[in-house]
Amino acid sequence: MNLLLLEDADFVAADRAILRDRRLKHLHEVHQAASGDRLRVGRLNGLMGSGTLLRLDATEAELQLQFDQPPPAKLPLTLLLALPRPKMLKRILQTVAAMGVPRLVLLNSYRVEKSFWQTPFLEPAALREQLILGLEQARDTVLPEVLIEKRFKPFVEDRLPAIAAETLGLVGHPGDYPPCPRAVEQAVTLAIGPEGGWIPYEVDKLREAGLQPVQLGARILRVETAVPVLLARLF
Amino acid sequence: MNLLLLEDADFVAADRAILRDRRLKHLHEVHQAASGDRLRVGRLNGLMGSGTLLRLDATEAELQLQFDQPPPAKLPLTLLLALPRPKMLKRILQTVAAMGVPRLVLLNSYRVEKSFWQTPFLEPAALREQLILGLEQARDTVLPEVLIEKRFKPFVEDRLPAIAAETLGLVGHPGDYPPCPRAVEQAVTLAIGPEGGWIPYEVDKLREAGLQPVQLGARILRVETAVPVLLARLF
Repeated sequence: MNLLLLEDADFVAADRAILRDRRLKHLHEVHQAASGDRLRVGRLNGLMGSGTLLRLDATEAELQLQFDQPPPAKLPLTLLLALPRPKMLKRILQTVAAMGVPRLVLLNSYRVEKSFWQTPFLEPAALREQLILGLEQARDTVLPEVLIEKRFKPFVEDRLPAIAAETLGLVGHPGDYPPCPRAVEQAVTLAIGPEGGWIPYEVDKLREAGLQPVQLGARILRVETAVPVLLARLF
Repeated sequence: MNLLLLEDADFVAADRAILRDRRLKHLHEVHQAASGDRLRVGRLNGLMGSGTLLRLDATEAELQLQFDQPPPAKLPLTLLLALPRPKMLKRILQTVAAMGVPRLVLLNSYRVEKSFWQTPFLEPAALREQLILGLEQARDTVLPEVLIEKRFKPFVEDRLPAIAAETLGLVGHPGDYPPCPRAVEQAVTLAIGPEGGWIPYEVDKLREAGLQPVQLGARILRVETAVPVLLARLF
């Protein structure tokens, strides 16, 4: 936790907040904080700044707050991801939030196991929890938007063309395709497939929606590695 | 497992192998393989090729093998990593092997918790197991070399200068430094710090050994994200 992220419910005045949950525990156990300490803070979806610990005991921490700094810029990106297996999903949500992806679409694909859609990690509170961990790690305050699209075809036919319009549309896909471009200057719509890859029908549909296949070399990476690798190349 | 990796002990003839362990289980449960199937295979530290399943039952799989293809090239890189916490170490070892790092140095740092050095994941067989998972994922056969350096100063003073000589030496470190370069043409020696970063003394010592600090922007990434991000930028 490199940023103490505060939500509306934490505030008892415009410049004062009280914490009682996992963040209190973290202040004690990891930061080994004490009254008078100054900490980096952020207001969820708002500014960042600093907080002074007025009081810290076993049940509560009270902070005096000052917000004066905008959060870091987001990447100009919509990321489409074939729904990963639940354990991987948690880490990927953190990575996506940490790296500054503003919009994530979790999409179905032929090779996504149906059971993955049943995971409790897709519930809004569970998604939010992982995204907040990523924001706290990277020092950002703005929650990414997450869209859940359980039907590939209607999303890709009806909604993706508008999302991809005026952007560089790319599909990460192994094969005889151009390499993924580096350090692009424009907004990007990027689709990353499931373990085993998109099936040819899906690649065709993504192409029709304006996304061109690009490859990353002979090595096949896990999705949780492919995401940071592709983002680091593109931006 | 995108490559079935065979070790010397698996061979019953120059072109024939028998499997009985986790790989047999994987053939049954994940690949749902059957006699006659052709699979991508590799010989540990050797060539890649294809294998035909002659026989597959509950206790054994027998393969007819043909090796005709070199493994993918490694990156021209020595990666120094402050020893990560054990859970993260496992994933990082897989990532390092999957991305083609030929040499990894696990190094002490002031901010590495002493208990991390006690983990059973540092034992040679445990290291090897994770590296092999990474090779199987990415389709490579050549095990990276892993050096374990529990003492920062003697390693950085006495051995690092020779490793870093004739390479582009870099330390990933947040701060007012040049951004990490992109798509470099030369060999690299790259040092990545622990959670919380190298301490100033360590940055000074790494500089003296020929490594220059570079930064990755305002966002603080977990080590397991910073590794693929830095490698994707550099190569």
